[in-house]
Amino acid sequence: MLDRGFQYGDGLFETLQIVDGAVQHWQRHMRRLTRGCERLGIAMPDVATLSSESEQLSAGVSLGTLKITVTRGVGGRGYSVKGNLEATRVLTVFPAEEYPANTFPQSYWRQGVTVRLCDMRLGHNVTLAGIKHLNRLEQVLARAEWDDPGIAEGLMLDNNNNVIEGTMSNVFCIKTVLSHHKKATNNATTEVEGETVLLTPDLSRCGVAGITRERILETAQQLDIPVRETDLALTDLQQASELFLSNSLIGIWPVRRFMSQDYAVGSVTRRLSAALGFHVGDDANTGEPAHV
Amino acid sequence: MLDRGFQYGDGLFETLQIVDGAVQHWQRHMRRLTRGCERLGIAMPDVATLSSESEQLSAGVSLGTLKITVTRGVGGRGYSVKGNLEATRVLTVFPAEEYPANTFPQSYWRQGVTVRLCDMRLGHNVTLAGIKHLNRLEQVLARAEWDDPGIAEGLMLDNNNNVIEGTMSNVFCIKTVLSHHKKATNNATTEVEGETVLLTPDLSRCGVAGITRERILETAQQLDIPVRETDLALTDLQQASELFLSNSLIGIWPVRRFMSQDYAVGSVTRRLSAALGFHVGDDANTGEPAHV
Repeated sequence: MLDRGFQYGDGLFETLQIVDGAVQHWQRHMRRLTRGCERLGIAMPDVATLSSESEQLSAGVSLGTLKITVTRGVGGRGYSVKGNLEATRVLTVFPAEEYPANTFPQSYWRQGVTVRLCDMRLGHNVTLAGIKHLNRLEQVLARAEWDDPGIAEGLMLDNNNNVIEGTMSNVFCIKTVLSHHKKATNNATTEVEGETVLLTPDLSRCGVAGITRERILETAQQLDIPVRETDLALTDLQQASELFLSNSLIGIWPVRRFMSQDYAVGSVTRRLSAALGFHVGDDANTGEPAHV
Repeated sequence: MLDRGFQYGDGLFETLQIVDGAVQHWQRHMRRLTRGCERLGIAMPDVATLSSESEQLSAGVSLGTLKITVTRGVGGRGYSVKGNLEATRVLTVFPAEEYPANTFPQSYWRQGVTVRLCDMRLGHNVTLAGIKHLNRLEQVLARAEWDDPGIAEGLMLDNNNNVIEGTMSNVFCIKTVLSHHKKATNNATTEVEGETVLLTPDLSRCGVAGITRERILETAQQLDIPVRETDLALTDLQQASELFLSNSLIGIWPVRRFMSQDYAVGSVTRRLSAALGFHVGDDANTGEPAHV
């Protein structure tokens, strides 16, 4: 109880998927955790130790969740830290059936999810933006705004009315934007053509930069889908042809309905999902865990 | 470790001073804790139980600190909370010599303290503003910006460049502002006169509304010192004639130096301190714990 994680939320966490005893995307999670420790000035635990502990805990787990929490450690009364503390690490494995992300209906992947807009805003802090730290009251309070089981997720805005993320997921939209090309042969004529781009919020002031978000951005580039991390307004989402959510446990959820608007499970969402090994739309009827 | 306080900083705390076995300003702390629980939707523990536990722990402690932490409890995987959890309560007593606020030199009260300006900003969140919740990374990181023992505290701005508070204290300044009075007998003439007012930051968007801050504001009104809770810029502090800090453990610290400017331990700071039973300036040489 004297741990600074409990006292001040002075730490970080990672939520990893376990499939057939193997922790998924270990390197990426360790990179983010390392980045977070650097940002907060916490002594990053030895990765080899974390790895062997994670392997032990995950052995024999066919589908589950590994949560790794790292805090600054025990010590310091008040906010001040004297000297270098030894970080606290807590590793916990949850069997699939005990973790909500694994108990969602198949329809979430097949037909997509209904999403609401949260009242709770995300405050700006450039030092804390992007990392998965333990100060999560904004997410807790946003998630507490609804208990309708028909609503799978809520999107959150920052104080500038930018769309940032879901309470537990990142958000993407596919939009056709007009590009203005000047014809080389005639400077006076501008040709306007539509370009289909994948947009996701810039997370430099708030939000959590998800591991699956990172994989989606990389995959889109490999598939030659133009990508922009940018400020997104609600109107951008309303003008989008496709909308989807991502996190490490759910993979990709197409959004079916948001703010009285219906979206189809679109072709870009399908292409990205297929490339990443996620099953969405009709493909989701696999009998396997839908998102593996 | 499955407590939501540890997982998400999903809770609140109070830091109370113990003098001669008695917890100071119990009612005020319980009011703030209750307000915080309401704001976060946490089941407030029974106050009578908290009271008897606090009394037991504080018995025989001549000078010390009681820390009460209340979290939403154990339960819920992910941010969502199903059903009403029983709140977790943790009460810890620290003898005076183990708590930094009690180990500061007499000079902090006599001559005042040197204060720096922190780089870390406070993000806005109207739901979290004012209450003493467990998401304290901003304070932890601000406090980690310096380790010069000659600097007692750092002031923090919000993203709009408003002065909000110290990392562990509230801030007040005394300033002479010009009041424009229209003479009743002659509307065309405006008489300008100086009025000495006590200013402290508005905490409706961020910051912690301290118990001692509350007492200072009430006492100022009783002493007919005009008070304003308002947006304060750094220039307001630079134009101030007196500057001081407050919290429940230190009482009042006059600020001697901030941003290359020197301040005296002024008459308003002295009047307020005397009325509240704090000893500052020359009075601080009592041989007793300086702030009692």
